[in-house]
Amino acid sequence: MKLGELAARLGCELRGDGELEIRGVAGLDEAGPGDLSFLANPRYAEKLRATRAGAVVVAPGHEAPVPSLVCDNPYLAFSRAVALVRAQPRPAPGVHPSAHVHATAVVGDGVHVGALAVVGAGVRVGARSVLHPHVVLYDGVLVGEDCELHSGVQVRERCRLGDRVVVQNGAVIGADGFGFARDAEGRYHKFPQVGIVVVEDDVEIGALAAIDRAALGETRIGRGSKLDNLVQVGHSVTIGEDSVLAGQVGVAGSTRIGRRVTLAGQVGVAGHLEIGDGVVATAQTGIPSSVEPGAVVSGYPAIENRAWLKASAVFAKLPELLRRLRELERKVESLLVR
Amino acid sequence: MKLGELAARLGCELRGDGELEIRGVAGLDEAGPGDLSFLANPRYAEKLRATRAGAVVVAPGHEAPVPSLVCDNPYLAFSRAVALVRAQPRPAPGVHPSAHVHATAVVGDGVHVGALAVVGAGVRVGARSVLHPHVVLYDGVLVGEDCELHSGVQVRERCRLGDRVVVQNGAVIGADGFGFARDAEGRYHKFPQVGIVVVEDDVEIGALAAIDRAALGETRIGRGSKLDNLVQVGHSVTIGEDSVLAGQVGVAGSTRIGRRVTLAGQVGVAGHLEIGDGVVATAQTGIPSSVEPGAVVSGYPAIENRAWLKASAVFAKLPELLRRLRELERKVESLLVR
Amino acid sequence: MKLGELAARLGCELRGDGELEIRGVAGLDEAGPGDLSFLANPRYAEKLRATRAGAVVVAPGHEAPVPSLVCDNPYLAFSRAVALVRAQPRPAPGVHPSAHVHATAVVGDGVHVGALAVVGAGVRVGARSVLHPHVVLYDGVLVGEDCELHSGVQVRERCRLGDRVVVQNGAVIGADGFGFARDAEGRYHKFPQVGIVVVEDDVEIGALAAIDRAALGETRIGRGSKLDNLVQVGHSVTIGEDSVLAGQVGVAGSTRIGRRVTLAGQVGVAGHLEIGDGVVATAQTGIPSSVEPGAVVSGYPAIENRAWLKASAVFAKLPELLRRLRELERKVESLLVR
Repeated sequence: MKLGELAARLGCELRGDGELEIRGVAGLDEAGPGDLSFLANPRYAEKLRATRAGAVVVAPGHEAPVPSLVCDNPYLAFSRAVALVRAQPRPAPGVHPSAHVHATAVVGDGVHVGALAVVGAGVRVGARSVLHPHVVLYDGVLVGEDCELHSGVQVRERCRLGDRVVVQNGAVIGADGFGFARDAEGRYHKFPQVGIVVVEDDVEIGALAAIDRAALGETRIGRGSKLDNLVQVGHSVTIGEDSVLAGQVGVAGSTRIGRRVTLAGQVGVAGHLEIGDGVVATAQTGIPSSVEPGAVVSGYPAIENRAWLKASAVFAKLPELLRRLRELERKVESLLVR
Repeated sequence: MKLGELAARLGCELRGDGELEIRGVAGLDEAGPGDLSFLANPRYAEKLRATRAGAVVVAPGHEAPVPSLVCDNPYLAFSRAVALVRAQPRPAPGVHPSAHVHATAVVGDGVHVGALAVVGAGVRVGARSVLHPHVVLYDGVLVGEDCELHSGVQVRERCRLGDRVVVQNGAVIGADGFGFARDAEGRYHKFPQVGIVVVEDDVEIGALAAIDRAALGETRIGRGSKLDNLVQVGHSVTIGEDSVLAGQVGVAGSTRIGRRVTLAGQVGVAGHLEIGDGVVATAQTGIPSSVEPGAVVSGYPAIENRAWLKASAVFAKLPELLRRLRELERKVESLLVR
Repeated sequence: MKLGELAARLGCELRGDGELEIRGVAGLDEAGPGDLSFLANPRYAEKLRATRAGAVVVAPGHEAPVPSLVCDNPYLAFSRAVALVRAQPRPAPGVHPSAHVHATAVVGDGVHVGALAVVGAGVRVGARSVLHPHVVLYDGVLVGEDCELHSGVQVRERCRLGDRVVVQNGAVIGADGFGFARDAEGRYHKFPQVGIVVVEDDVEIGALAAIDRAALGETRIGRGSKLDNLVQVGHSVTIGEDSVLAGQVGVAGSTRIGRRVTLAGQVGVAGHLEIGDGVVATAQTGIPSSVEPGAVVSGYPAIENRAWLKASAVFAKLPELLRRLRELERKVESLLVR
């Protein structure tokens, strides 16, 4: 694709030769003459000067030694360029002969059902959605339009996915929540998990993530939210729109997470809490109680991030602090007996 | 089902109209006129007064504005009511024609083997057990009676499951333990993992949990224990009866966990330890050494829970503490030079 | 196998009756008369004296009450003995009739493709490799010689595995990395992940581990490294040779991990860091910044291990420390007003 056409499609200002043919995409370090690259983080501005890329996407104010596409959000523009330059072949519409699609299932126009997939009774799959090999949809599942479910994904009975939902390999949507009633002898009895999971439009769910169905009502993942690999979402949790849960995050049952929340890697959130809109929790934070909107929290148990950073700095000095305390105690004793 | 019949089946005292028809189950907030609801946590007693439920299960001493079933353990009684009112259709007995069941495998009466399941040589599956689609049982696996293995579950060679075991989607039972011998050049060589996993009766294992086979003997999950999603159990671990491991807990190899132990979410337990009966570890606790029976532990490294709560409260004040220490040092110096 | 033959094959010194027939392998506690056992950890030397094993592998300087094989690395020698005595039957070469192997895929001599496996277009599988049932290889995947991929493993498009790679059940290699560009309205847009994963020779990957493909270039797991269950490796991460990542470790995107690094269970490493050769991080460590080669780190945020051990010991005493500080403040005030 010519650089000029890319500029037009991405809505970027073109600086330099629009006839340049772009054949690939790469980082600033790896890019060669036919590649488009980008500068999003000003920290790497030096790499821009040394790049061998054919062209780059940059923000206004950056001078590139090669033809460039200029726009306010170079990372977003470049990500769109990747989709244009490295367009992935879409599996052809049709149902693979080895797939098992129940007679009562309804599959929309242009849907691809891969080898050995299982589509249960009463399932509906919207137009142009792709089920890769070995996907299993239990009875009554609804999948919207333009979804992509990778191999090994399991969706349990009656769960519902919106449009443009992407589910990476091996994720499990709608397994039973972890609910047991204890009897007088201390034995646990299963609380039947008869609720469902609702995944709204434009959500992405990572590989081997587990989103449990509600005991009675529904577990809900809000529009546009992104969940990374190996994330655990307990039963009856709700997550607002445009929130991000990074790898290995765990959220216990019935907690309500707001909009535009960011939970970094390995964060844990206890059950029955309210996590306000815009909350950010840094990696490995453990959240035992509700968090006000807009707060940035860290640590275990979670406290305000700046307070945690300062306290952590002192933590490493605790042995010295104890020594100084003992020294003071000695001095004060000597003063008291004077 | 009529409320009176439910009362009889659950062994509850009936207050109000036994002819009331119960058609659904729901939480106090969501329940409508045909629904049964419940109050288990007295914290929500106010919701009871405002509920629109048709009937409720409550403990003695709670006055409900609607017909009620009274018993000592409302949560347990309600969970049984859910099973009665929302009975899930059981897959019909029989082997799906697309399943691959080895000629030497023995499948009991009333067993369901789903589409594309694989049942290896010498496997035995007890009466009435259900293997959902895409379950894989390696050679020599034993599965007891009335088990339910959800789609995507993998059980490795020679592992044994008792009766009434439930395994959620994608869980892996019996993968090789993490054992390697290091040579003089610092390279790792696989220690063949020739042991097995034994899962006793009434155990439930969560989605995408991994229970490793022992190197030589067996890994064992005790009767009635419940393991949540994404739990990791290392080789040769033993877990006693009626223990609970919440989501994303990890237990390293050869550790022995007692009876009625509770490990909350994301807890990590080091290898070769003894965790006594009745131990409770709060969320994200890291346990580096053995724990006495009955202890409640928290933190990383784990200490007694109350001590940890107090120390954590001081942690947030560490910068202030350091400031006060410096102030004292100044004052004491001034006193010393008087 | 006779003990004398084992000695010869393992390169150990034989002490005692070489005609002894070894029929099994077991730990010192469990071993019976026909079993070979071993002593690797001198802590268990007492068990050696009491063992009922038929023979043992020990290091020089240990006196065993039974015939023994003596060598410098008894654990390594014993692990080789296990492979000889308990040799696992290898699945017979051939493609199961229910497997779907694309016409353009090339499968080497002696390869086993199990039931219901899916092998995509252009895939190459090297000689003697084993694909267990339900393995899915997307188009363009390369698998080397003598690999073993257990049931439920998913390998995404164009990813490459070297020789003698072992992948435990359900692991996902090459799912999309977690990359999204945020627009001015705060919505996330997928950054297409067009890179790959390269797994070098002699790597083992645990059950339900997730190794993400790079956004643009490659994610790389170095020769001989071993990754345990439920490990998360973000996009564009590189791991050097002979490193070990224990269960539930998470490594965020673009981080470079050196050679012979050990990350213990549940360790988390932030993105875009350099973790030097030989670094050791103890369990649950959270690493927010780069680590020098050879360092041993602990805690959250990670600090030098010995400093962390000392500080952790003081942490538990924080309430007492605060009390002593207050007491001092009172005393100093009384001195100041004298």
